[in-house]
Amino acid sequence: MEKIKVTVWNEFRHEKSNEAIKAIYPEGMHKAIGKGIAADDLEIRYATLDEPDHGLTDEVINSTDVMIWWGHCAHGEVRDDIVAKVHKRVLEGMGLIVLHSGHFSKIFKAVTGCTCSLKWREAGERERLWNIAPYHPITQGIGEYFEVPHEEMYGERFDIPKDSEIIFISHFEGGNVFRSGVTLERGYGKIFYFQPGHESYPSYYQKEVLQVIGNAVRWAKPVFFREMSAPMTPALDEIRSENTGPFTGIIQNVDGSAK
Amino acid sequence: MEKIKVTVWNEFRHEKSNEAIKAIYPEGMHKAIGKGIAADDLEIRYATLDEPDHGLTDEVINSTDVMIWWGHCAHGEVRDDIVAKVHKRVLEGMGLIVLHSGHFSKIFKAVTGCTCSLKWREAGERERLWNIAPYHPITQGIGEYFEVPHEEMYGERFDIPKDSEIIFISHFEGGNVFRSGVTLERGYGKIFYFQPGHESYPSYYQKEVLQVIGNAVRWAKPVFFREMSAPMTPALDEIRSENTGPFTGIIQNVDGSAK
Amino acid sequence: MEKIKVTVWNEFRHEKSNEAIKAIYPEGMHKAIGKGIAADDLEIRYATLDEPDHGLTDEVINSTDVMIWWGHCAHGEVRDDIVAKVHKRVLEGMGLIVLHSGHFSKIFKAVTGCTCSLKWREAGERERLWNIAPYHPITQGIGEYFEVPHEEMYGERFDIPKDSEIIFISHFEGGNVFRSGVTLERGYGKIFYFQPGHESYPSYYQKEVLQVIGNAVRWAKPVFFREMSAPMTPALDEIRSENTGPFTGIIQNVDGSAK
Amino acid sequence: MEKIKVTVWNEFRHEKSNEAIKAIYPEGMHKAIGKGIAADDLEIRYATLDEPDHGLTDEVINSTDVMIWWGHCAHGEVRDDIVAKVHKRVLEGMGLIVLHSGHFSKIFKAVTGCTCSLKWREAGERERLWNIAPYHPITQGIGEYFEVPHEEMYGERFDIPKDSEIIFISHFEGGNVFRSGVTLERGYGKIFYFQPGHESYPSYYQKEVLQVIGNAVRWAKPVFFREMSAPMTPALDEIRSENTGPFTGIIQNVDGSAK
Repeated sequence: MEKIKVTVWNEFRHEKSNEAIKAIYPEGMHKAIGKGIAADDLEIRYATLDEPDHGLTDEVINSTDVMIWWGHCAHGEVRDDIVAKVHKRVLEGMGLIVLHSGHFSKIFKAVTGCTCSLKWREAGERERLWNIAPYHPITQGIGEYFEVPHEEMYGERFDIPKDSEIIFISHFEGGNVFRSGVTLERGYGKIFYFQPGHESYPSYYQKEVLQVIGNAVRWAKPVFFREMSAPMTPALDEIRSENTGPFTGIIQNVDGSAK
Repeated sequence: MEKIKVTVWNEFRHEKSNEAIKAIYPEGMHKAIGKGIAADDLEIRYATLDEPDHGLTDEVINSTDVMIWWGHCAHGEVRDDIVAKVHKRVLEGMGLIVLHSGHFSKIFKAVTGCTCSLKWREAGERERLWNIAPYHPITQGIGEYFEVPHEEMYGERFDIPKDSEIIFISHFEGGNVFRSGVTLERGYGKIFYFQPGHESYPSYYQKEVLQVIGNAVRWAKPVFFREMSAPMTPALDEIRSENTGPFTGIIQNVDGSAK
Repeated sequence: MEKIKVTVWNEFRHEKSNEAIKAIYPEGMHKAIGKGIAADDLEIRYATLDEPDHGLTDEVINSTDVMIWWGHCAHGEVRDDIVAKVHKRVLEGMGLIVLHSGHFSKIFKAVTGCTCSLKWREAGERERLWNIAPYHPITQGIGEYFEVPHEEMYGERFDIPKDSEIIFISHFEGGNVFRSGVTLERGYGKIFYFQPGHESYPSYYQKEVLQVIGNAVRWAKPVFFREMSAPMTPALDEIRSENTGPFTGIIQNVDGSAK
Repeated sequence: MEKIKVTVWNEFRHEKSNEAIKAIYPEGMHKAIGKGIAADDLEIRYATLDEPDHGLTDEVINSTDVMIWWGHCAHGEVRDDIVAKVHKRVLEGMGLIVLHSGHFSKIFKAVTGCTCSLKWREAGERERLWNIAPYHPITQGIGEYFEVPHEEMYGERFDIPKDSEIIFISHFEGGNVFRSGVTLERGYGKIFYFQPGHESYPSYYQKEVLQVIGNAVRWAKPVFFREMSAPMTPALDEIRSENTGPFTGIIQNVDGSAK
């Protein structure tokens, strides 16, 4: 069996600069996620912002089947040329799992074309994620709902494309709702956005959160990688209305007057 | 009655460099389009690539209700910062009508997040546009189909988002099909892509083509302009699970071990 | 100005059999709704289950532009032939506004093809409806959210088609979420489902609820009425592969063997 | 490996009443399809209109994973109670493949809620099916397009729901276009409509047509079977605004007057 090549990308700043967050994720959130979803069918690598090329060299990008993306305070520091390469790889088939504050990452904005704006609140409140798509591969093993005991609130209106298929809708204790799990397809690539994972809560140790991310990786596995181009294509059928003198006759056909 | 402020943007290069094309559109395609859709409820302005700021100063962008976009050979010369401003204006409510080879413009790629690739062929063949949405404002006045006598072929697979609502599907004489009229909504803005309009054919003098573009302008008129932000939002309901010491207790809740 | 012809259909049983409900809606919910949305551009009529033909004679159906439907305990008593006529009228262009427990009406099941099942609870809890589509005609005059102080809970998973465009998502005090306002289009008709309106609460006297219903009536106004048929259509282009002896040659083309 | 239980349902009238059609499908189209897709992972059964219960007893329906449906001249003879059982089974998870003239079957109308009307023409013309979804399981093994040498023309406007995902768009020699392969999901069931298969042409012996149907069977295989109900659900969170006397207080909250 060919393993799915997963690259977990993390901004990896909060975990170094803030003692409380370091206490939760001593090796960084990427390692918590990677270890949490580890399985025989996955080959997991890591990449972080402060490595050369953010750890996303051409070789890494072009050998990744599914990329997981966590970013927050340093979206602006991610190089545009690298985002463009990741975007191109998604369109050619790579899966992309965007987590939590990654809603405002350059890559998520690029694939959605939207502002991806939303409401937010840090109050450690309970999030209850209702399973809207029990038949979907991403929700297998998840019941009617599950709860994250303490999360940052993300609330509607979430500005995303209308073809976002809803997998979860969240009920926040403080009174908000949110489409907290949505899928998209762009080019040949599958995309999943998943809300849980604020850096100050241990959501990436929670069984259900990891189950959903692991399911999403397998769902987003590429069918193939294929570059999309815009080829000149010969006619399959005879074109009888073609003009040797292309302009004169045509103009006459339309406005009736001679040139 | 407040008029709809329309800005017709054109690359305006073919019409200057190629005598045959100049003969068809002596003032440029933008003027043919603008004059062709002129009506009492529209205030029409023009902007072209080679003007300072491509004719798209902040003042022009921010006073435009609906922008029409034609580009082809010089997509790469359009400045990224201006594309970003047009994109932002679309997300805040501005309508956008993208014509023909504009499928590969920076602005259409930005709002779709896709490659927007397709097949093509210049053979002056007949295009028959079937009306898939007779109830839609964009097709009012159009019957079951109409024909453009000579057009460039654009063929599937057209790589666009799945929420593209299909308005027209074209039958090309040479054997191809194409989703030749599709709508999208991004942010608060309405977008329409329309296939006809190769520079070497007089499609922008054709009654039905102009009818569709004029209808689309009125359909894409903004409901409002509103900036989207991501505001911190106070809780509406009491949060009883909030933690004063945010980390310790939470970690214990999840993995069961004391820190 | 031509008025929009609105027919408010109500089961009208609870208001006769239950004193407490009669106290809230002494003339029936249909009258509360009709009076609540009354305006110069609307011509409002009423029809109820226990009238002959449920008040929905051919003449009434065929002169209605937008029908509002409230039913609950007697869905099974609505005649199939009348549902079929209403369904046909929707497909030809009539707007349909389905309220609250109408999610299980024969007409809503018929236009959706789904079970339309959901969770429910009668606990007089607060419903907060978040406005997901601020640009939509149905939400004009409504802010970011509004609250119904006491409603029956309807909760996900709501089994509706995936092309249901989300207008509202509700947050229920007891912990559930619900897509409480969704639009659909079927044939040439526009459909809006709206959750508030349990018979034991006075929701149809609430300003915002009435505003939404009134907006929906105007949004659902038909563009035209047109019967859809499946016509035999002559070829527009020459068919050169046509066979006079239709079978022999064709089979040979496919399996290569002579008959 | 558990086999997928496929039931191929056929009206099976043309093949008995018309000698020319009998010559093409001597055992009926159902047998041609069943033999054409036969494989180790499929357990294939047959059912036809003129058997008792149309061959669709409760036992057959309730042990079918994916049903294939071909009907044409006798849609009206299919019993409503049996259609209702098949519909229920689809909503609970069964896959449904509707072929050709099945677009007007009771079951396809029931799951779509639409008229499913279209244009048609019997002229033995060439159909070229363009592959719009190369990443989709249904198109694996199919290239950019394939041709059926002689088919009945089905043309737009095809009245189907907007969430129909387009798999194929056809180009007909006589000048029409058609969304000839579309998927839908209703309840927990997956549905595929596929255009080729007029009784007077041997399309169900063609390799590509059989490949698509076989792929569709595997794609439509149920994830699970689950009955959907509308359960009363206890509150998960405390409801503080609940009223012991349910009406009085509520009415006062809304219209401000005492009862």
